[in-house]
Amino acid sequence: MNDNNKYGAEAVEAARLESWPNPSPERDYTIEISFPEFTCLCPRSGYPDFATIRINYIPDEKIVELKALKLYLNAFRERAISHEESANLIFSELNELLKPRSLEVIGDFNVRGNVKTVITVKL
Amino acid sequence: MNDNNKYGAEAVEAARLESWPNPSPERDYTIEISFPEFTCLCPRSGYPDFATIRINYIPDEKIVELKALKLYLNAFRERAISHEESANLIFSELNELLKPRSLEVIGDFNVRGNVKTVITVKL
Amino acid sequence: MNDNNKYGAEAVEAARLESWPNPSPERDYTIEISFPEFTCLCPRSGYPDFATIRINYIPDEKIVELKALKLYLNAFRERAISHEESANLIFSELNELLKPRSLEVIGDFNVRGNVKTVITVKL
Amino acid sequence: MNDNNKYGAEAVEAARLESWPNPSPERDYTIEISFPEFTCLCPRSGYPDFATIRINYIPDEKIVELKALKLYLNAFRERAISHEESANLIFSELNELLKPRSLEVIGDFNVRGNVKTVITVKL
Amino acid sequence: MNDNNKYGAEAVEAARLESWPNPSPERDYTIEISFPEFTCLCPRSGYPDFATIRINYIPDEKIVELKALKLYLNAFRERAISHEESANLIFSELNELLKPRSLEVIGDFNVRGNVKTVITVKL
Amino acid sequence: MNDNNKYGAEAVEAARLESWPNPSPERDYTIEISFPEFTCLCPRSGYPDFATIRINYIPDEKIVELKALKLYLNAFRERAISHEESANLIFSELNELLKPRSLEVIGDFNVRGNVKTVITVKL
Amino acid sequence: MNDNNKYGAEAVEAARLESWPNPSPERDYTIEISFPEFTCLCPRSGYPDFATIRINYIPDEKIVELKALKLYLNAFRERAISHEESANLIFSELNELLKPRSLEVIGDFNVRGNVKTVITVKL
Amino acid sequence: MNDNNKYGAEAVEAARLESWPNPSPERDYTIEISFPEFTCLCPRSGYPDFATIRINYIPDEKIVELKALKLYLNAFRERAISHEESANLIFSELNELLKPRSLEVIGDFNVRGNVKTVITVKL
Amino acid sequence: MNDNNKYGAEAVEAARLESWPNPSPERDYTIEISFPEFTCLCPRSGYPDFATIRINYIPDEKIVELKALKLYLNAFRERAISHEESANLIFSELNELLKPRSLEVIGDFNVRGNVKTVITVKL
Amino acid sequence: MNDNNKYGAEAVEAARLESWPNPSPERDYTIEISFPEFTCLCPRSGYPDFATIRINYIPDEKIVELKALKLYLNAFRERAISHEESANLIFSELNELLKPRSLEVIGDFNVRGNVKTVITVKL
Repeated sequence: MNDNNKYGAEAVEAARLESWPNPSPERDYTIEISFPEFTCLCPRSGYPDFATIRINYIPDEKIVELKALKLYLNAFRERAISHEESANLIFSELNELLKPRSLEVIGDFNVRGNVKTVITVKL
Repeated sequence: MNDNNKYGAEAVEAARLESWPNPSPERDYTIEISFPEFTCLCPRSGYPDFATIRINYIPDEKIVELKALKLYLNAFRERAISHEESANLIFSELNELLKPRSLEVIGDFNVRGNVKTVITVKL
Repeated sequence: MNDNNKYGAEAVEAARLESWPNPSPERDYTIEISFPEFTCLCPRSGYPDFATIRINYIPDEKIVELKALKLYLNAFRERAISHEESANLIFSELNELLKPRSLEVIGDFNVRGNVKTVITVKL
Repeated sequence: MNDNNKYGAEAVEAARLESWPNPSPERDYTIEISFPEFTCLCPRSGYPDFATIRINYIPDEKIVELKALKLYLNAFRERAISHEESANLIFSELNELLKPRSLEVIGDFNVRGNVKTVITVKL
Repeated sequence: MNDNNKYGAEAVEAARLESWPNPSPERDYTIEISFPEFTCLCPRSGYPDFATIRINYIPDEKIVELKALKLYLNAFRERAISHEESANLIFSELNELLKPRSLEVIGDFNVRGNVKTVITVKL
Repeated sequence: MNDNNKYGAEAVEAARLESWPNPSPERDYTIEISFPEFTCLCPRSGYPDFATIRINYIPDEKIVELKALKLYLNAFRERAISHEESANLIFSELNELLKPRSLEVIGDFNVRGNVKTVITVKL
Repeated sequence: MNDNNKYGAEAVEAARLESWPNPSPERDYTIEISFPEFTCLCPRSGYPDFATIRINYIPDEKIVELKALKLYLNAFRERAISHEESANLIFSELNELLKPRSLEVIGDFNVRGNVKTVITVKL
Repeated sequence: MNDNNKYGAEAVEAARLESWPNPSPERDYTIEISFPEFTCLCPRSGYPDFATIRINYIPDEKIVELKALKLYLNAFRERAISHEESANLIFSELNELLKPRSLEVIGDFNVRGNVKTVITVKL
Repeated sequence: MNDNNKYGAEAVEAARLESWPNPSPERDYTIEISFPEFTCLCPRSGYPDFATIRINYIPDEKIVELKALKLYLNAFRERAISHEESANLIFSELNELLKPRSLEVIGDFNVRGNVKTVITVKL
Repeated sequence: MNDNNKYGAEAVEAARLESWPNPSPERDYTIEISFPEFTCLCPRSGYPDFATIRINYIPDEKIVELKALKLYLNAFRERAISHEESANLIFSELNELLKPRSLEVIGDFNVRGNVKTVITVKL
């Protein structure tokens, strides 16, 4: 495995989100995505954190490409970032890319130090 | 098995949806259909995708014929099509054929690359 | 999508099972694999069949490579083959490739014509 | 976060397992440990893998120290290693360190490419 | 519906069980079949009875063909036959046709006159 | 309702158990019967008692006729009889009539005076 | 057991409902009673019927005495009466005796001839 | 055990309810108490009755002291009192002591003579 | 209620266990009794204790009379006795009275002081 | 609260286990005790640990007194002690005090640092 191959062969270039044209922009419909294997690092202790990320949206002109989304979420693996910041960052970058009609991002984090945290960001 | 016999003897001609007259157009009533064995191909990777397709509608003058619907859904087996597009396409073709009083199509796709996706299109 | 890309870019060459050396042949240990998205075609009617394939084994010198296994199982998608034959074929080919210390293959097929069938082949 | 702080302040030195003296070597008793947040990298694709690791043993002269065990398991986060090898490696290193009266290590891996795998290594 | 069309177009000729050659007679393996929609008539009262029929066997030279089995079980619909006799008859005819290495037939009948009955016939 | 019509038109004559010839005496098979609406009278207080009666047996030359069995069990309705005696009596009369290869009778009585009782008689 | 002792020593005289003064007529409160062992005889076939009787009421000046209620309900044991009539009769007699502020009687009958019936009478 | 020690050393003097000042009378909040080990004596038969007592209230100036409440409820152990009266008595005494903003007392009595009774008194 | 009427009219004389002749001493059969409303007093604190008593036995010449058993168990209500002693006492007295072929008594006590205790005495 | 009053007025003197004479040493019987509110301190981090302690034994001459056991287990609250040591210590002290015919102590500890541990010590 070489360095470019980290978290999937296309990981380096794909850690950016990609969009596809919405096949049916003439109507409102909802897309619900759930990613149960999100992990990042706690900025204070350096320990790994684990979460399920849920993304629910009504697309406008664009939809998110799912493989790029997976690689984008995988790329948090080595990032030191708080629960609150990661949920808000995913929300901001999806919102800017897709300009959806509505958007909700939920970060449902595993218990850490006997504390369970769920972050919900909604448009 | 000859070529015409693919996915059922009548598959070639029947991959088009058919309608029957609604036996009780004088009242509103709901029809809920669930098809747990939907499969198509991912347009990016070529891998097979699997889903349960749910169709809920209030008919107006027409109802959908169930065997033709099964063969129509079976015919996605060799089609390269995204999650969003297949749910919207089934919705559009049912809507055009039946012109129902209400219609909802849900594509509940199996996890792919650790991502679970549900598409809901509603009239 | 070109022809070589069917059921994954490497599908053509990979529809053959591959083995890796067992990292710990000095001891007995068990590997349990479950594949819930198996589909093939009924040799009598041409309709699609769906199953979960379960593989449990104790390796000897070799273990099965999981991505090649997935592509191998994906490749039944266009094959007309009975329930009994597919379970026995998977058993035979794994047995020949791996020469494992023990092997069990279970084909747990979805209801077809109101009949539910489970095939269990064991070494 | 500096380099030494990866996966917890003591991670660098602690990625080695540590033992404590068994407080009651005069009798047989069992210790069952479960760690649901194991993650490593697939040696073929570079993608992250996730698992629950279960360790059951009867200690002899030594018991495993739980915080060092956690840091040891956290340290697989950047390692490219197969399912079979990681379960056997954890088994071998615990066995060598503790020389326990009995030992079982189970790697219960999340679905990857629609394939679910469980590895069980037992003394 | 004409007479030949009773319970499916091929019902008349197919009400006899059919066998296929066992694809793997060189090994023991088990086939478990469940048919939840069995119905016959009570020989005393003439009322309909309902049951789930379960068939578990290890084939020798032959396996039962599933569509013919379905039509065979469908053909009890107009037969006046007791619980005990139907389970034994299915057992006897399967046993004679297949000469399997082992065979079990279970007739799990619905409550009738506040009495629930389960018949188990085993080779 | 005339006197003969008590607990079903044929009740008077049918309160005796009847047997039919076993359709398959050449083999061992089991018959499991459950009757959830048994009621009799407490010999001490005169209050009604309620139970589920379960009968499991392997027939020899005879099987019990189910409608006669139901009428026989219905006929305990006016009988003052203890829990232990009713279970043993049903056992004895079935045993004498059928001379089965094995027999088990369970009387699972409803709570009475805050006491719940289950009687199991087995050959 | 003598004749007077039927369904409890006091059964003959007690088959009439009795009331007690409501200990708290100054306020509205609800009393919910459930009797799962009701049995009577079908007026058409003579067969026994079984039901749970539920009684919910807000008392005014009187409450029902529970032992007399039990004996009253026990006394249906030999009565040939339809489902609808028994529920309405219990309602009428309770209503006349108690003149409650509200009253609901539910007869939840066991399946008979594969038909399940629930009768609800409400003030 | 001397006489004063009945149902706890402080039982004699404590069989009276006690109140404490509500620490937060400036807001509405609810207190739910459940006591599953209530027992008293049936005034008609002398037999013991068993119940779960549930108390739900919004306090005003006072809250009930829990140990005194337990001893108060324990003290019904030797009292002959009907289901309806005990629920209303507990309600009245709590209401008079606490003058709460709302109050509900539920006496959920065990089956007695095959009759189950639930009393609900609400302010 | 007079003094003799404590815990049932016949309580004083009936607090002794009674036996009936076994109606079927010629065979082994099992009797399972469960009494969920046992209560006695803690010999140390004087507080009430609650338990479910379970009695399972194979009778020899005698069976226990159920109403006397209930009154016998009711009579522990005012007795100060430990968990261990009550279970053993019930066992001893049943054993002496019935001289059964086998006997098991289980005292399953409610949580007391955060401690849950189950006592099992077996012949 | 003065020092003597820690975790209950009798805690200081009672933190020693006490025994009572076994009321029935003439027979083998089992006592199962469960204490879900055990807490101690981690000897490495100083953080609180929580566990359910289960004790199952067959007494010989002595039984453990339950209130003293509770106070003894409460007294671990301020003790820094490992999972393995606390389970073994409870086992040793019970074993020495009671010299029981058999003894099992299980410490079922809550997740700590994402690690779940269960210790089982058995005679």
